[in-house]
This record gives sequence, C-alpha cells and structure tokens, in this order.
Amino acid sequence: MLTARIIRHHNPQTTAARRNPFDIKTVVVKDSDIEKHDDKEFITHHIFPHPWFSTPECEAIHYAHREPKTIGDTIAFRWIQFFRSSFDFVTGYRKPKNAQEVQDGFAGTRYQMTEGKWLTRCIFLESVAGVPGAVASFLRHLHSIRLLKRDKAWIETLLDEAYNERMHLLTFIKIGQPSWFTKLIIYVGQGVFCNLFFLFYLVNPKYCHRFVGYLEEEAVSTYSHLIEELDMGKLPAFDHLLVPTIAVQYWPELTDKSTFRDLILRIRADEAKHREVNHTLANLDQDTDRNPFALQVEGLDKPQPENGLKTHRPTGWEKEDLKL
Amino acid sequence: MLTARIIRHHNPQTTAARRNPFDIKTVVVKDSDIEKHDDKEFITHHIFPHPWFSTPECEAIHYAHREPKTIGDTIAFRWIQFFRSSFDFVTGYRKPKNAQEVQDGFAGTRYQMTEGKWLTRCIFLESVAGVPGAVASFLRHLHSIRLLKRDKAWIETLLDEAYNERMHLLTFIKIGQPSWFTKLIIYVGQGVFCNLFFLFYLVNPKYCHRFVGYLEEEAVSTYSHLIEELDMGKLPAFDHLLVPTIAVQYWPELTDKSTFRDLILRIRADEAKHREVNHTLANLDQDTDRNPFALQVEGLDKPQPENGLKTHRPTGWEKEDLKL
Ligand SMILES: [Fe+2]
Ligand SMILES: [Fe+2]
Ligand SMILES: [Fe+2]
Ligand SMILES: [Fe+2]
Repeated sequence: MLTARIIRHHNPQTTAARRNPFDIKTVVVKDSDIEKHDDKEFITHHIFPHPWFSTPECEAIHYAHREPKTIGDTIAFRWIQFFRSSFDFVTGYRKPKNAQEVQDGFAGTRYQMTEGKWLTRCIFLESVAGVPGAVASFLRHLHSIRLLKRDKAWIETLLDEAYNERMHLLTFIKIGQPSWFTKLIIYVGQGVFCNLFFLFYLVNPKYCHRFVGYLEEEAVSTYSHLIEELDMGKLPAFDHLLVPTIAVQYWPELTDKSTFRDLILRIRADEAKHREVNHTLANLDQDTDRNPFALQVEGLDKPQPENGLKTHRPTGWEKEDLKL
Repeated sequence: MLTARIIRHHNPQTTAARRNPFDIKTVVVKDSDIEKHDDKEFITHHIFPHPWFSTPECEAIHYAHREPKTIGDTIAFRWIQFFRSSFDFVTGYRKPKNAQEVQDGFAGTRYQMTEGKWLTRCIFLESVAGVPGAVASFLRHLHSIRLLKRDKAWIETLLDEAYNERMHLLTFIKIGQPSWFTKLIIYVGQGVFCNLFFLFYLVNPKYCHRFVGYLEEEAVSTYSHLIEELDMGKLPAFDHLLVPTIAVQYWPELTDKSTFRDLILRIRADEAKHREVNHTLANLDQDTDRNPFALQVEGLDKPQPENGLKTHRPTGWEKEDLKL
C-alpha cells in the first residue's frame, strides 16, 4: 500500500538553470525518503473535515478581482501588490499577462519556472498563509472571553482556514524539501509577518480580512498559472507524481490514483473559498454580525453562503444580500 | 419552548451580606431578561462536540493532587498556590479544610459564600481558563508552519480545551451578569495573564502545561465545594434554576429538565479532564511525542488515554504507560 503513493519520477532541476537561491535545493523527495516521510501509523481524523468540492466546481474557479471601494480597500490592495511584486522580483517569478506569456513561460530568463521553484514558492506562501486565520481566531477567542460575549461562529471558519493552509503546507513538504536558506526565510518571515498582522488585527480587523481577501486573489492567480504550466507539459517532474497520503486522507475527492494536477485543483479551490470568506467578513460588522458561512439560518428565501462551492461568490457577499 | 428554560426563582443577594465589591452585582438574570439573552435562532453546531460523560463518572470526580517531582513542578505548583491564595483573600473565599468547615460555610464572616459571589468567581475563573488552551494551540500552530513539521494532534485537544472553557463562560453569563467592576478586572486581568502565559509558553511549554494541570486541580476543588454547598441547601437561588439553552445544546447529557447541579457536575468533570490532559502533556516531549488523547493508535495491549472518562487518570499519565 505504501508504494502505491511513491513518486515514480523525479528530476526537478534539469529543466532550467539555477539562477537564484530560491531555485537551488527544493527537490522532489526521493523514493527512498518516502518511508521516512510517511508516518502513516499516525494519520488521524481531521479537526475540520474538508467539504466535498466536485471536479467541475474546481475547474470553474478563476482569478477574480474585487474593485476597491473605500480608502481602506485601496490601502489593503496596494500592500498586497507591493508584497507580491517584491516577492516575485526576488524569487524570479513573473505573473503572465496573457496566453502568449503563459505559452512562452519566460524561457531562458530568470523568470522561467522549474518544479523546484514552484515547490519553494508554494511552501513559502503556504507557510505565510497559515498565519492570518490563526491570529484572527486567537484574537476573537480572547475578545469573546474578555468581553463576555459570544462570537457568532467567526472563530470556527477562521480556525478552519488556518488548518486548511497548514494542510496545504504539510502536503507540499511531503513532495519537496526546501533548502536551509528557504527554511531560514520562512522562520524569520513568520516572526515579522505574524507580529505585524497581530497588531493590525487588534486595531482594524475589518481591513485585515480585506487584505487576506486580496492575498487570496493572488493565490488563485498563482495556482491557475501552475495548472496552465502543468497542462502545457512544462513541468514533467510533476506529471507522474502521485499525491501524498496526507492529502488523500484530507480531500475527500482524492484517491491513491489522483495526480498532482488533481491536488493543485483542490488547493486552488480552497484559496478561492478563503478569498470569498475574507472579502465577505470584511463587509460585515466585526462585533455584531454573525459569520454566515458557519452560522446558517434556515428557511431563507434567497441563496446564502455555505461551506462548499454551491453558492460561491468570488469577490465575496455584499452585506445587503445576507440575512444577519 | 423558550419558557421551558426560564429561571423560576431568583433571589441571590438576600442570603448573605454584601461584604466586598466582588459580591455586589452579579445577579441571577431576571425572567424578563431571558428573551434578550436567549439568541436561540442563532444556536449552531459545535466546533468540538462534547463527549458523553455519564452521571456516575461525573459524580466520581474528586480533588486529586499530583506530587511535584521536579523543581519545575514545584515552581509551577507554588505559582498556583500564590495566585489562588491572593485571589481567595481579595474576593473573600476560603477553601474548606474539612467537613465541618463545609458544614459551617464560614457563616457570618467575609468568607461566607452567596449565589452572587459564586457566580462572580466562576465567571472570572472561566474567563482566565480560556486563555492557556488558546495560547498553546496558537503557538503550536505557528511552530508547525514555521518549522515545516506536523503537530501530532496537540493543537486539536488544546483548541477543544479553550472552546470548552469558553462554553463554561458563555453558560455562566446566561445565568448571571457581573458588575462593571468585575468586568473591568476581567478585561485587565486577561491583558496581564495572556501576555505572561504567552511568553512563558514560548520559553517553556512543558511547565506551562504543568501549571495548567495544577490550576485545574484547584478548579476541581472549587466546583466540588460548590456542589457540596448546593447539596446542603446553602444556595437556594440555584435550586430552581434551569440550565440555559446554550448548555443544553452543548452537553449531550443535559436536557430542558436538568438542574444547576447537573450542570456544575459536568463542568467539574471537564476541569478534571483538563487536569488529566495537561498533567499528561507536561510529561511528554513537546516536539516529538504525539498527543495520545487525540491521536490514538489502535490495537494496543494496555489502556490508553481517550476523550471521555473511561480511562480517566486524575494526576495524568506517566510517559512509560503510553505508547508514543
Ligand atoms: Fe493555501
Ligand atoms: Fe489561502
Ligand atoms: Fe472551566
Ligand atoms: Fe479548566
């Protein structure tokens, strides 16, 4: 059974030159490492079971942008643009602007992607992505017990988000092990980002959710690009890779036979869900409104948010469309 | 249906003199307040469903003390003794040393308890009790995503503990509303305790769990005293009080007909469970051992920890009794 999920092909570093430190040492794990990494005896139930996302729903996910409406929205969006462009520049990534750029894949430049660069990027971003939900749920818990008020189910969705991001990360590190340099950046990066997000969330949680909404727009964009590169056959080391046990256990649609593309399709859908949730939460009164994703009211005459993708709204729900 | 859970009797302040500010204004809610406090439309499912605790198991819970074995244990225990005695002195509470003192109830002294004092005490302590699990789970989540390592299911039990304490608190505030003075102390107290516990948990999580183990020993002691006073008829305002909807929804054994004593019996069992969990976690290697409460291994030849009270060990499980 163990061998059913081994990686049959790994050759991540041959398709492009190593041009920067982020490209050096994230390698797809070797077959002989599998046993070591597969602590299957200890696979447990999930705190937050993953809802069922059908394949057509996942395929339909696409990049969407919520137009900033307030000054706060604009500031949140500018921060994301600033972080994204700095990160892209340093790590040698360029977001393709059109089908031709996707096709060309920036071949021969420092922006050409490799399997190793993709994995480094995913691991770094998923490590960052696990912070906001954890901070927000922690602070809302403290808020509830300090002010003797119920929370109206926000904590649940935020914890689920943090858990989901951690599952993304734990899945990726079964596939690739980053270099010590990447690990150092992740360690230091969390120290900076977590403290900043913590302070901002204390002061203005609404715009922190907006910030995460914009962050998740970029995540959907990045995973869409990865899927395009997979479909074009630009990343052969991923073609014959089967998904790790941890992912098969977590996403209800994945099986022993699932491909790396099936996995990325689910991860992208998760990011789209975070985008919807955070843009919606940013539209709500942080103290008095219920979280409509977790705390549903029955018998309403119009569609309402839910955990799956049935009523998915990429740019979030406006307050007037919700019964709160 | 709403009226099925109204409070039929409330007269909390007549049985003893008001001797200190903690005794002033925690009053059992008035019948007319019920509707306002009962946001039943918005009752939701539980993130962490409560396990079934049978009545005999709950009745069998008793105070137990784990002898300190290391210097760290002793320091943790001394801190708890220091906090407890300061808090008891300021709020006018005395832990009875024998059956005679329980019987006498410190009548006529500033240590005589009233319904209002009990509620103030419970609300304050439950507000504090919700901090450690939240801090510990938050820091372990960050640790996991910063070091790219799985957590081995500690987060789950710690989040459950924090959630459980918050449910205790939300239940009590349906029964009594504390004065602005108590609310202020709670607000400021969290600021101090949360920051201290956060820093200590970063430095030495093991002894933080030991500290919580000792804290929970005192919680079991306090709730046992409350049950004794109820059984002696010293707290008549609680005798005809039915438990709030939120508690009926949360504890699977409670119904519309349950009494305040039934509720306190469950809360005491929860504290005993936290005592067991934290003393056990303090015996483990914080980085490499699995949490045996949430991550169970099947087919072992000796009893192992579980979520309910079937294999309950009041002073925690020793490492050599666990398969890790
Ligand atoms: Fe993610
Ligand atoms: Fe995300
Ligand atoms: Fe409690
Ligand atoms: Fe407790």
